Amino acid sequence: MACKSRVSDAIATLVGVFHEYASKDCEEDHFKLSKSELKELMQKELDMDNVKDPAKLDELMKELDEDGDGQVDFLEFVGLVAGMACVCNDFIELMLSEQAKSE
Amino acid sequence: MACKSRVSDAIATLVGVFHEYASKDCEEDHFKLSKSELKELMQKELDMDNVKDPAKLDELMKELDEDGDGQVDFLEFVGLVAGMACVCNDFIELMLSEQAKSE
Repeated sequence: MACKSRVSDAIATLVGVFHEYASKDCEEDHFKLSKSELKELMQKELDMDNVKDPAKLDELMKELDEDGDGQVDFLEFVGLVAGMACVCNDFIELMLSEQAKSE
Repeated sequence: MACKSRVSDAIATLVGVFHEYASKDCEEDHFKLSKSELKELMQKELDMDNVKDPAKLDELMKELDEDGDGQVDFLEFVGLVAGMACVCNDFIELMLSEQAKSE
C-alpha cells in the first residue's frame, strides 16, 4: 500500500500494522486484536515493554476495550494512537516554546 | 525523530509533518495550521487536490476547526487523520471479507 505522501503513508502503516497483528491468532476475530496480539503489537511497534506485566496489560486492555468484547477493534486502536500522538505533540510544543524563549 | 517501530514512526511522522506545515506562515501561530497551510498539507501529504476549490477548503476548515479560532490545532488535525484511517480500514476489512468469501 505505497503512497507518495507522508500522512497517507502513516495512515496506511497504521491500518497495515493493525491487520498484521489482528490476523495472527487463527481462532480469534481477524479484524480485532486479542490480548496476546495487543501485547505483541505494543512491544514491537510501540516500544511499550511495560505490557510484559500482566496487570499492566489487563489495565490497558480494559481502557481500550470500550465495547467490552474482550478485544480491541480498529476504532479503539486508532483512539490509542491519537492519544499517544497528542502526548508526543504536547512534548514537542513544550520543547519548541522553551527553545523560542532561549533564542 | 527516528524510531525502531512502525507505529511509533507513524506517530512521529504525523507530529513532524504537522509542525513542518504549521510553522510556514511567519505571522501566524506556529503551533496551528492556517487555511493556506492546511491547503498545502492536504495536497502534498494527503493527495487531496479537491482543496484547490476554495469552497471545498472553506468547508473542510469549518469542519475541522472545532474551537472556531480560524486555525487547525494538532488535536483537530489528528481527528481528521483518525477519521481517514477508519475509512481506509473499513475499505480494507470489506476487501478482506470479500476475499475470504471467494476462497
